[in-house]
Amino acid sequence: MKLSGGVEWALHCCVVLTTATQPVPAARLAELHDVSASYLAKQLQALSRAGLVTSVQGKAGGYVLTRAPELITILDVVAAVDGAQPAFVCTEIRQRGPLGAAQEVCTRPCPIARAMAGAEAAWRAALQAVSIADLAAGVDEDYGPTALAGIRGWLSGPSDSDTAAAERR
Amino acid sequence: MKLSGGVEWALHCCVVLTTATQPVPAARLAELHDVSASYLAKQLQALSRAGLVTSVQGKAGGYVLTRAPELITILDVVAAVDGAQPAFVCTEIRQRGPLGAAQEVCTRPCPIARAMAGAEAAWRAALQAVSIADLAAGVDEDYGPTALAGIRGWLSGPSDSDTAAAERR
Repeated sequence: MKLSGGVEWALHCCVVLTTATQPVPAARLAELHDVSASYLAKQLQALSRAGLVTSVQGKAGGYVLTRAPELITILDVVAAVDGAQPAFVCTEIRQRGPLGAAQEVCTRPCPIARAMAGAEAAWRAALQAVSIADLAAGVDEDYGPTALAGIRGWLSGPSDSDTAAAERR
Repeated sequence: MKLSGGVEWALHCCVVLTTATQPVPAARLAELHDVSASYLAKQLQALSRAGLVTSVQGKAGGYVLTRAPELITILDVVAAVDGAQPAFVCTEIRQRGPLGAAQEVCTRPCPIARAMAGAEAAWRAALQAVSIADLAAGVDEDYGPTALAGIRGWLSGPSDSDTAAAERR
Protein backbone atom coordinates (compact mmCIF):
# COMPACT_ATOMS: atom_id res chain seq x y z
CA MET A 1 0.00 0.00 0.00
CA LYS A 2 1.46 3.32 -0.98
CA LEU A 3 0.33 6.92 -0.73
CA SER A 4 1.21 9.42 -3.43
CA GLY A 5 4.37 11.36 -2.52
CA GLY A 6 2.44 14.55 -3.21
CA VAL A 7 0.53 14.09 0.05
CA GLU A 8 3.62 14.99 2.09
CA TRP A 9 4.30 18.15 0.04
CA ALA A 10 0.65 19.23 0.18
CA LEU A 11 0.54 18.83 3.97
CA HIS A 12 3.73 20.88 4.39
CA CYS A 13 2.29 23.62 2.14
CA CYS A 14 -0.94 23.74 4.17
CA VAL A 15 1.01 24.09 7.44
CA VAL A 16 3.10 26.90 5.93
CA LEU A 17 -0.05 28.67 4.68
CA THR A 18 -1.41 28.78 8.27
CA THR A 19 1.33 31.25 9.12
CA ALA A 20 1.12 33.47 6.03
CA THR A 21 -0.33 36.96 6.40
CA GLN A 22 -0.86 37.38 2.66
CA PRO A 23 -1.32 35.10 -0.39
CA VAL A 24 1.79 33.02 -1.11
CA PRO A 25 2.80 32.44 -4.74
CA ALA A 26 3.43 28.80 -5.71
CA ALA A 27 6.99 29.77 -6.71
CA ARG A 28 7.64 31.12 -3.19
CA LEU A 29 6.38 27.87 -1.60
CA ALA A 30 8.64 25.95 -3.99
CA GLU A 31 11.62 28.17 -3.05
CA LEU A 32 10.94 27.65 0.67
CA HIS A 33 10.82 23.87 0.20
CA ASP A 34 13.63 23.71 -2.40
CA VAL A 35 11.50 21.73 -4.83
CA SER A 36 10.52 22.09 -8.48
CA ALA A 37 7.83 24.76 -8.87
CA SER A 38 5.97 22.70 -11.48
CA TYR A 39 5.82 19.65 -9.19
CA LEU A 40 4.54 21.71 -6.26
CA ALA A 41 2.04 23.51 -8.52
CA LYS A 42 0.48 20.13 -9.28
CA GLN A 43 -0.14 19.49 -5.57
CA LEU A 44 -1.47 23.01 -5.01
CA GLN A 45 -3.87 22.57 -7.94
CA ALA A 46 -5.15 19.34 -6.35
CA LEU A 47 -5.73 21.24 -3.07
CA SER A 48 -7.47 23.98 -5.03
CA ARG A 49 -9.74 21.53 -6.90
CA ALA A 50 -10.76 20.09 -3.51
CA GLY A 51 -11.58 23.58 -2.24
CA LEU A 52 -8.92 23.60 0.50
CA VAL A 53 -6.88 26.47 -0.93
CA THR A 54 -7.72 29.15 -3.45
CA SER A 55 -5.55 31.11 -5.78
CA VAL A 56 -5.78 34.88 -5.44
CA GLN A 57 -4.97 36.60 -8.75
CA GLY A 58 -2.95 39.77 -9.26
CA LYS A 59 0.44 41.26 -8.42
CA ALA A 60 0.22 40.31 -4.71
CA GLY A 61 -1.54 37.06 -5.63
CA GLY A 62 -0.86 33.54 -4.48
CA TYR A 63 -2.41 30.74 -2.49
CA VAL A 64 -4.43 31.04 0.72
CA LEU A 65 -6.31 28.46 2.79
CA THR A 66 -10.05 28.74 2.16
CA ARG A 67 -11.01 28.14 5.78
CA ALA A 68 -9.58 28.07 9.30
CA PRO A 69 -6.84 25.42 9.65
CA GLU A 70 -8.90 23.88 12.49
CA LEU A 71 -11.46 22.97 9.81
CA ILE A 72 -9.05 21.23 7.39
CA THR A 73 -8.09 17.69 8.37
CA ILE A 74 -5.23 15.52 7.16
CA LEU A 75 -7.88 13.28 5.59
CA ASP A 76 -9.11 16.26 3.50
CA VAL A 77 -5.58 16.75 2.14
CA VAL A 78 -5.00 13.02 1.53
CA ALA A 79 -8.29 12.77 -0.39
CA ALA A 80 -7.48 15.92 -2.37
CA VAL A 81 -4.08 14.66 -3.55
CA ASP A 82 -4.43 10.88 -3.53
CA GLY A 83 -8.16 10.49 -4.21
CA ALA A 84 -10.92 9.24 -1.94
CA GLN A 85 -11.26 5.74 -3.42
CA PRO A 86 -10.81 2.82 -1.00
CA ALA A 87 -7.41 1.08 -0.88
CA PHE A 88 -9.10 -2.33 -1.00
CA VAL A 89 -11.62 -2.86 -3.79
CA CYS A 90 -13.77 -6.01 -3.51
CA THR A 91 -14.18 -7.71 -6.89
CA GLU A 92 -16.80 -10.24 -5.66
CA ILE A 93 -14.53 -13.26 -5.90
CA ARG A 94 -17.17 -15.16 -3.90
CA GLN A 95 -19.45 -15.10 -6.98
CA ARG A 96 -16.87 -16.74 -9.28
CA GLY A 97 -16.29 -20.34 -10.31
CA PRO A 98 -18.29 -23.57 -10.04
CA LEU A 99 -19.29 -22.95 -6.40
CA GLY A 100 -19.74 -19.19 -6.71
CA ALA A 101 -22.45 -17.64 -4.54
CA ALA A 102 -25.50 -16.42 -6.45
CA GLN A 103 -25.64 -12.65 -6.76
CA GLU A 104 -28.98 -12.48 -4.95
CA VAL A 105 -27.57 -13.98 -1.73
CA CYS A 106 -24.67 -11.49 -1.74
CA THR A 107 -26.69 -8.77 -0.09
CA ARG A 108 -23.90 -7.47 2.10
CA PRO A 109 -20.12 -7.30 1.69
CA CYS A 110 -18.30 -10.59 2.35
CA PRO A 111 -16.32 -11.11 5.58
CA ILE A 112 -13.06 -10.18 3.83
CA ALA A 113 -14.47 -6.95 2.39
CA ARG A 114 -16.00 -6.06 5.78
CA ALA A 115 -12.69 -6.54 7.62
CA MET A 116 -10.76 -4.53 5.03
CA ALA A 117 -13.33 -1.72 5.13
CA GLY A 118 -13.20 -1.68 8.94
CA ALA A 119 -9.42 -1.23 8.90
CA GLU A 120 -9.66 1.57 6.35
CA ALA A 121 -12.32 3.27 8.45
CA ALA A 122 -9.90 3.22 11.40
CA TRP A 123 -7.19 4.77 9.21
CA ARG A 124 -9.53 7.48 7.91
CA ALA A 125 -10.83 8.25 11.41
CA ALA A 126 -7.26 8.76 12.65
CA LEU A 127 -6.49 11.13 9.74
CA GLN A 128 -9.73 12.99 10.28
CA ALA A 129 -8.92 13.54 13.95
CA VAL A 130 -5.88 15.69 13.16
CA SER A 131 -6.29 19.16 11.64
CA ILE A 132 -3.79 21.40 9.90
CA ALA A 133 -3.98 23.61 13.00
CA ASP A 134 -2.92 20.61 15.12
CA LEU A 135 0.06 20.06 12.82
CA ALA A 136 1.07 23.73 13.07
CA ALA A 137 0.80 23.53 16.87
CA GLY A 138 3.01 20.42 16.70
CA VAL A 139 5.68 22.37 14.81
CA ASP A 140 5.72 25.07 17.51
CA GLU A 141 5.86 22.34 20.16
CA ASP A 142 8.81 20.62 18.47
CA TYR A 143 10.93 23.60 17.42
CA GLY A 144 9.67 26.47 19.59
CA PRO A 145 7.49 29.42 18.62
CA THR A 146 10.16 30.95 16.36
CA ALA A 147 9.96 28.24 13.70
CA LEU A 148 6.67 29.15 12.02
CA ALA A 149 7.19 32.82 12.91
CA GLY A 150 10.50 32.63 11.04
CA ILE A 151 8.72 31.24 8.01
CA ARG A 152 6.10 34.01 8.28
CA GLY A 153 8.87 36.63 8.21
CA TRP A 154 10.61 34.96 5.29
CA LEU A 155 7.36 34.77 3.30
CA SER A 156 6.84 38.53 3.80
CA GLY A 157 10.39 39.32 2.65
CA PRO A 158 11.69 39.62 -0.90
CA SER A 159 12.07 36.44 -2.95
CA ASP A 160 15.46 35.46 -4.42
CA SER A 161 14.31 36.70 -7.80
CA ASP A 162 13.26 40.10 -6.31
CA THR A 163 16.66 40.40 -4.62
CA ALA A 164 18.48 39.53 -7.83
CA ALA A 165 16.41 42.13 -9.70
CA ALA A 166 17.20 44.76 -7.05
CA GLU A 167 20.92 43.96 -7.26
CA ARG A 168 20.84 44.43 -11.02
CA ARG A 169 19.43 47.91 -10.58
CA MET B 1 -3.78 4.72 -1.62
CA LYS B 2 -4.20 1.35 -3.24
CA LEU B 3 -3.61 -2.23 -2.17
CA SER B 4 -2.39 -4.82 -4.66
CA GLY B 5 -5.32 -6.76 -6.15
CA GLY B 6 -3.49 -9.95 -5.20
CA VAL B 7 -4.38 -9.38 -1.54
CA GLU B 8 -8.03 -10.25 -2.19
CA TRP B 9 -7.13 -13.48 -4.04
CA ALA B 10 -4.63 -14.50 -1.39
CA LEU B 11 -7.17 -13.99 1.40
CA HIS B 12 -9.78 -16.07 -0.45
CA CYS B 13 -7.22 -18.85 -0.99
CA CYS B 14 -6.30 -18.87 2.71
CA VAL B 15 -9.97 -19.15 3.73
CA VAL B 16 -10.46 -22.03 1.28
CA LEU B 17 -7.36 -23.79 2.63
CA THR B 18 -8.87 -23.78 6.14
CA THR B 19 -11.46 -26.26 4.93
CA ALA B 20 -9.19 -28.57 2.91
CA THR B 21 -8.44 -32.03 4.29
CA GLN B 22 -5.47 -32.54 1.97
CA PRO B 23 -3.00 -30.35 0.04
CA VAL B 24 -4.72 -28.32 -2.70
CA PRO B 25 -2.92 -27.86 -6.04
CA ALA B 26 -2.64 -24.27 -7.28
CA ALA B 27 -4.51 -25.30 -10.44
CA ARG B 28 -7.41 -26.57 -8.31
CA LEU B 29 -7.60 -23.26 -6.40
CA ALA B 30 -7.55 -21.44 -9.75
CA GLU B 31 -10.37 -23.66 -11.05
CA LEU B 32 -12.46 -23.03 -7.92
CA HIS B 33 -12.00 -19.26 -8.30
CA ASP B 34 -12.21 -19.23 -12.11
CA VAL B 35 -8.97 -17.29 -12.42
CA SER B 36 -5.73 -17.72 -14.38
CA ALA B 37 -3.55 -20.37 -12.71
CA SER B 38 -0.37 -18.37 -13.36
CA TYR B 39 -1.82 -15.26 -11.69
CA LEU B 40 -2.97 -17.21 -8.65
CA ALA B 41 0.37 -19.05 -8.48
CA LYS B 42 2.07 -15.67 -8.03
CA GLN B 43 -0.07 -14.91 -4.95
CA LEU B 44 0.47 -18.41 -3.53
CA GLN B 45 4.22 -18.01 -3.98
CA ALA B 46 4.08 -14.74 -2.05
CA LEU B 47 2.20 -16.52 0.77
CA SER B 48 4.79 -19.29 0.65
CA ARG B 49 7.75 -16.86 0.82
CA ALA B 50 6.14 -15.32 3.92
CA GLY B 51 5.80 -18.77 5.51
CA LEU B 52 1.98 -18.73 5.63
CA VAL B 53 1.49 -21.67 3.26
CA THR B 54 3.79 -24.41 2.11
CA SER B 55 3.85 -26.45 -1.03
CA VAL B 56 3.72 -30.23 -0.48
CA GLN B 57 5.43 -32.04 -3.37
CA GLY B 58 4.29 -35.25 -5.06
CA LYS B 59 1.24 -36.75 -6.79
CA ALA B 60 -1.15 -35.70 -3.99
CA GLY B 61 0.78 -32.46 -3.53
CA GLY B 62 -0.48 -28.91 -3.25
CA TYR B 63 -0.69 -26.03 -0.84
CA VAL B 64 -1.48 -26.22 2.89
CA LEU B 65 -1.54 -23.56 5.60
CA THR B 66 1.59 -23.82 7.75
CA ARG B 67 -0.23 -23.11 11.00
CA ALA B 68 -3.70 -22.96 12.53
CA PRO B 69 -5.88 -20.33 10.81
CA GLU B 70 -6.36 -18.68 14.22
CA LEU B 71 -2.65 -17.82 14.05
CA ILE B 72 -2.67 -16.18 10.61
CA THR B 73 -4.00 -12.63 10.53
CA ILE B 74 -5.20 -10.52 7.61
CA LEU B 75 -2.18 -8.30 8.26
CA ASP B 76 0.13 -11.31 7.69
CA VAL B 77 -1.48 -11.89 4.28
CA VAL B 78 -1.42 -8.19 3.33
CA ALA B 79 2.27 -7.95 4.24
CA ALA B 80 3.04 -11.17 2.33
CA VAL B 81 1.42 -9.98 -0.91
CA ASP B 82 1.70 -6.20 -0.77
CA GLY B 83 4.86 -5.78 1.31
CA ALA B 84 5.30 -4.45 4.81
CA GLN B 85 6.61 -0.99 3.90
CA PRO B 86 4.63 1.99 5.24
CA ALA B 87 2.14 3.70 2.93
CA PHE B 88 3.48 7.12 3.93
CA VAL B 89 7.22 7.60 3.66
CA CYS B 90 8.61 10.78 5.25
CA THR B 91 11.28 12.38 3.06
CA GLU B 92 12.30 14.97 5.69
CA ILE B 93 10.90 17.97 3.87
CA ARG B 94 11.44 19.97 7.08
CA GLN B 95 15.21 19.84 6.43
CA ARG B 96 14.98 21.38 2.96
CA GLY B 97 15.34 24.93 1.70
CA PRO B 98 16.62 28.20 3.18
CA LEU B 99 14.81 27.70 6.53
CA GLY B 100 15.30 23.93 6.73
CA ALA B 101 15.70 22.48 10.22
CA ALA B 102 19.21 21.25 11.01
CA GLN B 103 19.49 17.47 10.97
CA GLU B 104 20.62 17.40 14.61
CA VAL B 105 17.39 18.97 15.89
CA CYS B 106 15.28 16.44 13.94
CA THR B 107 15.57 13.79 16.61
CA ARG B 108 12.01 12.53 16.28
CA PRO B 109 9.58 12.30 13.36
CA CYS B 110 7.87 15.61 12.48
CA PRO B 111 4.18 16.19 13.42
CA ILE B 112 3.05 15.17 9.92
CA ALA B 113 5.02 11.90 9.96
CA ARG B 114 3.76 11.14 13.48
CA ALA B 115 0.12 11.62 12.49
CA MET B 116 0.50 9.52 9.34
CA ALA B 117 2.25 6.75 11.28
CA GLY B 118 -0.49 6.81 13.93
CA ALA B 119 -3.18 6.31 11.29
CA GLU B 120 -1.27 3.44 9.71
CA ALA B 121 -0.83 1.85 13.12
CA ALA B 122 -4.63 1.94 13.56
CA TRP B 123 -5.08 0.30 10.14
CA ARG B 124 -2.54 -2.41 10.91
CA ALA B 125 -4.03 -3.07 14.35
CA ALA B 126 -7.46 -3.59 12.78
CA LEU B 127 -6.03 -6.04 10.22
CA GLN B 128 -4.08 -7.84 12.92
CA ALA B 129 -7.23 -8.30 15.01
CA VAL B 130 -8.89 -10.51 12.38
CA SER B 131 -7.59 -14.01 11.69
CA ILE B 132 -8.20 -16.33 8.75
CA ALA B 133 -10.24 -18.45 11.18
CA ASP B 134 -12.45 -15.41 11.88
CA LEU B 135 -12.99 -14.95 8.13
CA ALA B 136 -13.93 -18.63 7.71
CA ALA B 137 -16.37 -18.31 10.63
CA GLY B 138 -17.80 -15.25 8.90
CA VAL B 139 -18.44 -17.27 5.73
CA ASP B 140 -20.36 -19.88 7.72
CA GLU B 141 -22.28 -17.09 9.46
CA ASP B 142 -23.21 -15.44 6.14
CA TYR B 143 -24.05 -18.48 4.01
CA GLY B 144 -24.68 -21.26 6.51
CA PRO B 145 -22.47 -24.23 7.42
CA THR B 146 -22.83 -25.86 3.99
CA ALA B 147 -20.81 -23.19 2.14
CA LEU B 148 -17.29 -24.12 3.25
CA ALA B 149 -18.33 -27.78 3.61
CA GLY B 150 -19.40 -27.69 -0.04
CA ILE B 151 -15.99 -26.36 -1.02
CA ARG B 152 -14.35 -29.10 1.09
CA GLY B 153 -16.31 -31.75 -0.81
CA TRP B 154 -15.51 -30.18 -4.18
CA LEU B 155 -11.80 -30.02 -3.35
CA SER B 156 -11.81 -33.76 -2.53
CA GLY B 157 -13.56 -34.60 -5.80
CA PRO B 158 -12.03 -35.03 -9.25
CA SER B 159 -10.85 -31.92 -11.08
CA ASP B 160 -12.28 -31.01 -14.48
CA SER B 161 -9.11 -32.32 -16.11
CA ASP B 162 -9.43 -35.67 -14.21
CA THR B 163 -13.05 -35.95 -15.37
CA ALA B 164 -12.13 -35.18 -18.96
CA ALA B 165 -9.35 -37.81 -18.84
CA ALA B 166 -11.80 -40.39 -17.38
CA GLU B 167 -14.31 -39.62 -20.12
CA ARG B 168 -11.65 -40.18 -22.78
CA ARG B 169 -10.96 -43.67 -21.34
